[in-house]
Amino acid sequence: MRAMEITLNSPLDMHLHLRDGDMLKLTAPLSADFAGAVIMPNLVPPVTTPEMMQGYAERIEAALDGAAFTPYMTLFFTALGEKELLAARETPGFFGFKLYPAGITTNSEGGVSDMAQADTTLHLMEELGIPLLVHGESHGFVMDREQEFLAVYRHLATRYPKLKLSMEHITTAAALKLLDEFPNICATVTLQHLIITLDDVAGGALRPHLFCKPIAKRPEDRDALLQAALSGHPRLFFGSDSAPHPRCRKEACGCAAGVFTGPVALPKLAEIFATHGALENLQAFVSDNACKWYGLAPVQKQITLRNTPMSVPAAYRSYGQEVVPMYAGESIGWSVVR
Amino acid sequence: MRAMEITLNSPLDMHLHLRDGDMLKLTAPLSADFAGAVIMPNLVPPVTTPEMMQGYAERIEAALDGAAFTPYMTLFFTALGEKELLAARETPGFFGFKLYPAGITTNSEGGVSDMAQADTTLHLMEELGIPLLVHGESHGFVMDREQEFLAVYRHLATRYPKLKLSMEHITTAAALKLLDEFPNICATVTLQHLIITLDDVAGGALRPHLFCKPIAKRPEDRDALLQAALSGHPRLFFGSDSAPHPRCRKEACGCAAGVFTGPVALPKLAEIFATHGALENLQAFVSDNACKWYGLAPVQKQITLRNTPMSVPAAYRSYGQEVVPMYAGESIGWSVVR
Repeated sequence: MRAMEITLNSPLDMHLHLRDGDMLKLTAPLSADFAGAVIMPNLVPPVTTPEMMQGYAERIEAALDGAAFTPYMTLFFTALGEKELLAARETPGFFGFKLYPAGITTNSEGGVSDMAQADTTLHLMEELGIPLLVHGESHGFVMDREQEFLAVYRHLATRYPKLKLSMEHITTAAALKLLDEFPNICATVTLQHLIITLDDVAGGALRPHLFCKPIAKRPEDRDALLQAALSGHPRLFFGSDSAPHPRCRKEACGCAAGVFTGPVALPKLAEIFATHGALENLQAFVSDNACKWYGLAPVQKQITLRNTPMSVPAAYRSYGQEVVPMYAGESIGWSVVR
Repeated sequence: MRAMEITLNSPLDMHLHLRDGDMLKLTAPLSADFAGAVIMPNLVPPVTTPEMMQGYAERIEAALDGAAFTPYMTLFFTALGEKELLAARETPGFFGFKLYPAGITTNSEGGVSDMAQADTTLHLMEELGIPLLVHGESHGFVMDREQEFLAVYRHLATRYPKLKLSMEHITTAAALKLLDEFPNICATVTLQHLIITLDDVAGGALRPHLFCKPIAKRPEDRDALLQAALSGHPRLFFGSDSAPHPRCRKEACGCAAGVFTGPVALPKLAEIFATHGALENLQAFVSDNACKWYGLAPVQKQITLRNTPMSVPAAYRSYGQEVVPMYAGESIGWSVVR
């Protein structure tokens, strides 16, 4: 096999769950090959104030133990006035707001139940240039939730044309179609949604470590997402949605939603892009597209990946935590050159 | 609440997995409110000969410990000649053949991979009046498998017009439509597919005890199945597909497919039919329709159900086995009068 490698400049993970406490100590270093990541605010309680956000950013910094990595911090969206939005925007590390429909995923019980109540806040965010990242699912049938939510995205993109609006972790061909229709929207897509379908979760035996929200969809959805990513679609960004849960919460009745991909994301992406002869678009997908859209200037960091295999551990264990990654106990064709 | 009750004559479960060994000893008595059941042959190895079938029937008899219950025995379908088919038909307790597409569900690796190879056998079964029960799923995307298989049912119903053909455990509105189109086909439907959708399996947290094959489908499928059952559709029979697995195989990575409904099926069916004002059709659904179709004359047995609650145990434990039933730890509105 021909030796291949690629050097990425400042790769970014535009959607990351690091959790808190001992789990944060475990997960943060495992994402530190990235130059930075957009950090989700759905802790318990959710991160709703600049003070909470700053405290969380400091705990992330501490967990990173000196690694050059910028946490782009988000606040859990609630209806706020101009003074509060300005305070948020002025807080160091602030990136934007994450909006969850109430109760739609892990720790989202305090989310938005009626978008009309958010109108004033959204107009202000549009004026102030504050990004809105949305977990776009309805409360309908699990395979239809994202598609049903597209009407809300359409409404937001039309009513707030200058709002920096992101459809987070899209999973359907229909969402891509909307992305193409509205040049004022961007989107993120995870690693797993480029690879798996519902078949991988529940088509053979049930595989809880591949269970996430939004749930993996149909083969034609996966194929469309993969093609868009490989093509370097300028408004589609990598966002792992890496979402660790303790092993005991995944391998049990009532398995929590989330796939832990942080430590395998860059090698697997390199393998996928190389397999499809699209390595030249990986830089755009994992960094440049997002930098252009948001005007980011991440810390300079070069990561070289090579087509020598990475053995993925069966689990990552530290600080009393145990988390099972995607491809646990398997081999990935590419690895980070250390 | 008004006291209600219904007395069922010789209820039948037209699709039941009792397993073998210690698991059989646990499960058989828990289905003994039924007067009989069609027993699935997917043991390890599968039940492919009259001798194996007789031995299995004897072990079932022993496990029933004197309960009046007729096991209608099936053989795992393989391509057979006339002599073998006649030998099967003459074996006491023989009911029909169960056909599995190869590898489609638990212990089905030795199933049929090409229906054309079964042609001679199916013509003979048609002539000899031997029922064919089919697990009708393709190897396609999990939500499409049953619908994709309908073309095979259509082919079978057309090519072998007098074959007693049953679509087992149907899960879609499309299968019901085919049932209406072909008066020479019958079908069974489980308890869970009258109640749950994919939302119950994977819409919130993952619920392995509701994971089965075929997987639960969309709300409109569930609603259509329920309406057909409540209406007393003359060619739709109750078949629980109660499929016990040890708790440790359900609450783990790689959860096995199957919902254990044997001990709750009759009370829950009574509750559902009563709730929908259709109690008068329950006798047809759980016995008369199948008796007419197959010409069965089951052992006489009357079971009275009443709208006093049944507390479902968190698990059934005996003979070193532990199995979690549907509605574990919950209450069902109706119960068997003992």
